[in-house]
Amino acid sequence: MQSLQFTAESSSNGVRERDFTVGGVPGVLWSPASGADRAPLVLMGHGGGRHKKHPAMAGRAQLLVTGCGFHVAVIDAPGHGDRPRTAQDERDIDELRRAQAAGEPEGPIVVRYNARLAELAVPEWQTTLDALQELPEIGADGPVGYVGIAMGTAIGVPLVAAEPRITAAVFGMMWPDALLEKAKQITVPVEFALQWDDERIPRAAGLALFDAFASKEKTLHANAGTHVEFPMYEVDSSVRFLARHLGRAVTSPA
Amino acid sequence: MQSLQFTAESSSNGVRERDFTVGGVPGVLWSPASGADRAPLVLMGHGGGRHKKHPAMAGRAQLLVTGCGFHVAVIDAPGHGDRPRTAQDERDIDELRRAQAAGEPEGPIVVRYNARLAELAVPEWQTTLDALQELPEIGADGPVGYVGIAMGTAIGVPLVAAEPRITAAVFGMMWPDALLEKAKQITVPVEFALQWDDERIPRAAGLALFDAFASKEKTLHANAGTHVEFPMYEVDSSVRFLARHLGRAVTSPA
Repeated sequence: MQSLQFTAESSSNGVRERDFTVGGVPGVLWSPASGADRAPLVLMGHGGGRHKKHPAMAGRAQLLVTGCGFHVAVIDAPGHGDRPRTAQDERDIDELRRAQAAGEPEGPIVVRYNARLAELAVPEWQTTLDALQELPEIGADGPVGYVGIAMGTAIGVPLVAAEPRITAAVFGMMWPDALLEKAKQITVPVEFALQWDDERIPRAAGLALFDAFASKEKTLHANAGTHVEFPMYEVDSSVRFLARHLGRAVTSPA
Repeated sequence: MQSLQFTAESSSNGVRERDFTVGGVPGVLWSPASGADRAPLVLMGHGGGRHKKHPAMAGRAQLLVTGCGFHVAVIDAPGHGDRPRTAQDERDIDELRRAQAAGEPEGPIVVRYNARLAELAVPEWQTTLDALQELPEIGADGPVGYVGIAMGTAIGVPLVAAEPRITAAVFGMMWPDALLEKAKQITVPVEFALQWDDERIPRAAGLALFDAFASKEKTLHANAGTHVEFPMYEVDSSVRFLARHLGRAVTSPA
């Protein structure tokens, strides 16, 4: 198996941040600075065009680490962050930008592009999870959760469908087209967020993806507003959801 | 104006409970036992066939009073709790029971019955609010919220549409038919809950009512499960929603 190499370390605001690589894929592991023995692990998937330490990731990690005592790991998606883009990445991104600039439907392009990345990213995530569970402070038998919105959902749905170690997941804001069959295989608790007035993803498309999960416990949070008006209190909600399902109380109000 | 008469008082678990009447309508006011100077007020509407002190009301009140320091008031709906049923109430209830027993659609009966009760209950609530705001511990200028699911929504939507003193509301689980026009007049923040697999209220009907609110901030919480499987964590969510909008922090995890 491929082992995890730590490449940098720092600490601030009660959070220990360690950069790592596994099999050439760069990632970051955030943990309680005070130490955390066998604490639950949350895997997070970043959004399209973003990276493992984007403020949306670092902010959620701060809440999960200091509020719940969890470990939180993010890896750069293929062609994102510190990873080089392939010629196919460049073509997909160019096609997406052209469609957006021309006011043409972007859904089919995002669906195809993200499905291609997911095929690469799912085994990368599984290798990373194997390596993270070798760390004594995480271990092989602790609870594992997943959070990813938008592209983090496009990668996360096939990951959670394939990965029985993940026992609770937060998803949202993605077209259902490439994900319906995988969503039907997911039975763990799911919290799913969408924007009621999303100008990019049609309302019925978002509802169809939520509907597809086979989970006995699933909850849809739909908020008024456009795609970019996703409210911050949904971040707090996802922290409470993971705390409930991974077996830790939120010790400070989140 | 009709003043409020207290008729009984007790105290337990940090909550002071005072029964009252206003213009012949019986109600209950729950307040912090430690005293609460000018604290926000939450009005709660109980469900059909239930009453002002049903455990669903007392349980929410406990969280709102001890968690947020709020006052919480409930009045018996017409023909409910300590109030006599009219001949029309008996006819409506008989018709509903017959339809339920025969497996016939109950929606049209509930909609008509609850709309009739709402016409009576809205002015009763306004008179009650007038009287409650005369109390020095509440006052005329403090924030006021509303919580009511099912029949509490059938009465609450026209109440909140008519009553500018109410600045945040929690609704859910009701047919939209009699409520759409009133919902379109509501602009205050709304949290709306429905059951994704509700066998009584069609999914599209619940979504249509949520869609109708004109509120810039509105959030839909849809949970997997049947009508009676409404999850307890939505009660906690409604407490956090009211705490956020009525200007108090939740001081104990709710």
